Amino acid sequence: MSGAAPFGRVVVFGAGLIGGSFALALKAAGQVGEVVGFGRTLGSLNQALRLGILDRVGFNIGQEVYSADLVLIAAPVGMSGEIMARIAPCLGPQTVVTDAGSTKEDVVAAAREHFGGRIGQFVPAHPIAGAENSGAAAARADLYRDRQVVLTPLPENDAASIACVRAAWAACGAIIRELSAAEHDRIFAAVSHLPHLLSFALVHELAGRDNRELLFDFAASGFRDFTRIAASHPEMWRDICLANRLALLEELDRYRAQLDALRDSLQAADGARLEEVFDIARRARRDWGERRGGR
Amino acid sequence: MSGAAPFGRVVVFGAGLIGGSFALALKAAGQVGEVVGFGRTLGSLNQALRLGILDRVGFNIGQEVYSADLVLIAAPVGMSGEIMARIAPCLGPQTVVTDAGSTKEDVVAAAREHFGGRIGQFVPAHPIAGAENSGAAAARADLYRDRQVVLTPLPENDAASIACVRAAWAACGAIIRELSAAEHDRIFAAVSHLPHLLSFALVHELAGRDNRELLFDFAASGFRDFTRIAASHPEMWRDICLANRLALLEELDRYRAQLDALRDSLQAADGARLEEVFDIARRARRDWGERRGGR
Repeated sequence: MSGAAPFGRVVVFGAGLIGGSFALALKAAGQVGEVVGFGRTLGSLNQALRLGILDRVGFNIGQEVYSADLVLIAAPVGMSGEIMARIAPCLGPQTVVTDAGSTKEDVVAAAREHFGGRIGQFVPAHPIAGAENSGAAAARADLYRDRQVVLTPLPENDAASIACVRAAWAACGAIIRELSAAEHDRIFAAVSHLPHLLSFALVHELAGRDNRELLFDFAASGFRDFTRIAASHPEMWRDICLANRLALLEELDRYRAQLDALRDSLQAADGARLEEVFDIARRARRDWGERRGGR
Repeated sequence: MSGAAPFGRVVVFGAGLIGGSFALALKAAGQVGEVVGFGRTLGSLNQALRLGILDRVGFNIGQEVYSADLVLIAAPVGMSGEIMARIAPCLGPQTVVTDAGSTKEDVVAAAREHFGGRIGQFVPAHPIAGAENSGAAAARADLYRDRQVVLTPLPENDAASIACVRAAWAACGAIIRELSAAEHDRIFAAVSHLPHLLSFALVHELAGRDNRELLFDFAASGFRDFTRIAASHPEMWRDICLANRLALLEELDRYRAQLDALRDSLQAADGARLEEVFDIARRARRDWGERRGGR
């Protein structure tokens, strides 16, 4: 359409919160000619069309992908492999593919399997902008503003492909970082996947009790914040847990050891040790909050 | 001072977030003649004086308490006993004493010990308005608006004493509930004390690692909310953990069993079970959020 935009055609697989916000941000920045969407249900794609996220709902995957400058895979992690298998034979010589998966080693393994000799055209990425809401209706053009996007480039990626993905995320207002896929998965197991598991576990445990109504009735703002992430998408988090299973198991075991030690201190009524642990945690949390500012 | 106010003189022990906000709210509602404060340091009392929380810094405990209509003990739970011992001999015939402790069975036990035959003048209470900030500077007149305050009245309390404490909290805009002290402590172990312990444990565990800077650098909004309560006051939370030790140990053991089960599912890569757990948690958390509205 608009030949002047850096990205003539962008194809998104999944036009929900993540893919939809990406499309809206590129459009708001005047960076894209047209956005074409594929997805699991026609209903959600039509909704994305009505919301101005998509210009067209795609019909012929081969044709759309061949002529695309950039393809974003923004479906649940568990579906990445299937999508890759379908698009791999159709890549144009200029097509760059990226993804938005919360885990990276599994995505890279799937990409190597499906893209084969064209793996250089796939640049893995993870935008860190979770939200407990999902779907096209939750998408917004400013979701990625001042948020981090982690690229985990492959040795096979050429500079131009990496620059293409960086440019797209920069146009969304994101701060771009690079890690190896393995580093990425270990870091996010600790600071994201484990907290989600812990929060789900607490709410699930309480929800199974006979007196749950009474308990929830007295839960206040501390509970609200601690459990906000327990309202996250079950299917998405199932896939993340399975994809990053080994790193997450390691984090879970470290955390259980920490809880065991705290239990011992509590059992022994060791107030000095409890206060010391709480004090170290408080300082670290406050320092983090201050460094982070409003983000 | 103003003979028309329902409470001629209110004495607060501790003029920080909790006691200070109580004083400011009563003043804003025109419910109090004067507020007199006692505390651990003259510096914090003078700050409360400058902020308009106190009308006077108390000097003679016996005199002030004898002529007070209402005394609020809003010091750390671990100091309640000492304060009770000092005020018990000085209660006037009209003086009603209440507290703001986050645990109740220990406070009631201490009150029985110190107030003896005058235990009927002590009405235990717990305003549920935690905040990670503390001190007089954090106090605000609207802290308790639409928040719950749980009274755990004693068989010895007469109706007038209970009505006095209810009236004071109602003037602060609070929603007043009643529970037994034992019920209170079991409920709050589950929905407040345990989440605090879990959040402290996570941040403490990460803060002890060599790569903590890298980890914290990639922590995002999920981590921010999950760990907000890990910035809570270490001394206060030490006292709460010790005071409610048995109920908290029981909750911690239930939670560890829950984590063990989740670990098994993860180890077995049982995606169906993980999704089921996450789905139950999400529904319960969403229902709770909706019932609670903006609170």
